[in-house]
Amino acid sequence: MSVITIERKVLEKNDTLAAQNRELFSGHRLFVVNMVSSPGSGKTSLLERTIEHLGSKKRLAVIEGDVQTDYDAQRLARYHIPVVQIVTNGGCHLEANLVKNALTNFDLKSVDLLIIENVGNLVCPANYDLGETMKVVLMSTTEGDDKPLKYPAMFRNSGALVINKVDLLPYVNCHLEDLKQNALQINPSLKIFETSCTTRAGISQWCDWLAQKVPVHP
Amino acid sequence: MSVITIERKVLEKNDTLAAQNRELFSGHRLFVVNMVSSPGSGKTSLLERTIEHLGSKKRLAVIEGDVQTDYDAQRLARYHIPVVQIVTNGGCHLEANLVKNALTNFDLKSVDLLIIENVGNLVCPANYDLGETMKVVLMSTTEGDDKPLKYPAMFRNSGALVINKVDLLPYVNCHLEDLKQNALQINPSLKIFETSCTTRAGISQWCDWLAQKVPVHP
Repeated sequence: MSVITIERKVLEKNDTLAAQNRELFSGHRLFVVNMVSSPGSGKTSLLERTIEHLGSKKRLAVIEGDVQTDYDAQRLARYHIPVVQIVTNGGCHLEANLVKNALTNFDLKSVDLLIIENVGNLVCPANYDLGETMKVVLMSTTEGDDKPLKYPAMFRNSGALVINKVDLLPYVNCHLEDLKQNALQINPSLKIFETSCTTRAGISQWCDWLAQKVPVHP
Repeated sequence: MSVITIERKVLEKNDTLAAQNRELFSGHRLFVVNMVSSPGSGKTSLLERTIEHLGSKKRLAVIEGDVQTDYDAQRLARYHIPVVQIVTNGGCHLEANLVKNALTNFDLKSVDLLIIENVGNLVCPANYDLGETMKVVLMSTTEGDDKPLKYPAMFRNSGALVINKVDLLPYVNCHLEDLKQNALQINPSLKIFETSCTTRAGISQWCDWLAQKVPVHP
């Protein structure tokens, strides 16, 4: 019995299902974000601001991943966009088959941009492809500027980094330039945004970039 | 092939090794804390304040667990206490065998209190017993007051909760009473501390409690 081999088989099976998801997304010309971060970095808050900003311009849908509770889906319910909650019951990351099952709840023909909010975990979700177009990693300034170096896989596998809670910079031991430099050292092609979901700083830059990523539907 | 069965076997093997660690700790009358939290909640900062406060009264030793880098061990090096760094190379939690191997680097006869700083992850380390006397879960006020409900296993399996960064409460959307109520709803016997490693608020209460947990050596 080799645990490594089993893990590889689990990942291979996941990759096969992720490829099926990706094909489905591509067929519907969907842009799909897999949003990853530690607990409490502000994923759901960024989603709220994003829906407020883009909701009238693009047809959004959300898959919420949580270890327990459907609180995040409840928070988004007031925006009247399609939201499906996945509760992993202790599972530390979303997998492609969970997303595949969740997709049956959407009318994908009526969606331009699907955002999957992963479980709050800066380690495990890095290894599980969901079929997304791009991983976006979020981190809060309160987590400290050394985190890209200490948790490199997530930053290496992401296309964009959103540095959230910049309004707290005066009060925390986090140097923005060091943080960005550390992130770019791990992944020089990371597109970096600086946001505050409280003051709304940087939200329009993030949303404008996201909007131009979404294919124009005929 | 059943992944569930394999996972159970991995956990059973871990539990056997954890029991051996626990017996070793008990033989040396060691109090051992397994400190768990998300990345950036302030585990290493709390360790620094704890060493400053207790270092002259108790013989401390630290095991640092990180996905990558030995930055945390470097931070603690200036305190001249025994520190061993475990780098998991992508692994999302410490396991009992890693701790068992690390223990060979200490003279356990000369230690009263061993603190194991786990990998920053509020999900996976909950399931892996290291042989510790007690898990202590740390969270930062910036992570939000709903986290005990959303990541319940860690709060259920811990003996104490340290709510860190209370100096940031005026600037964040976190209600301390709600946070404590949510934590106690998951685990009514949690001992709760409120700290700031910046202003040193609550550090002496935390350290005094910790110190009286350490058995008096003959």
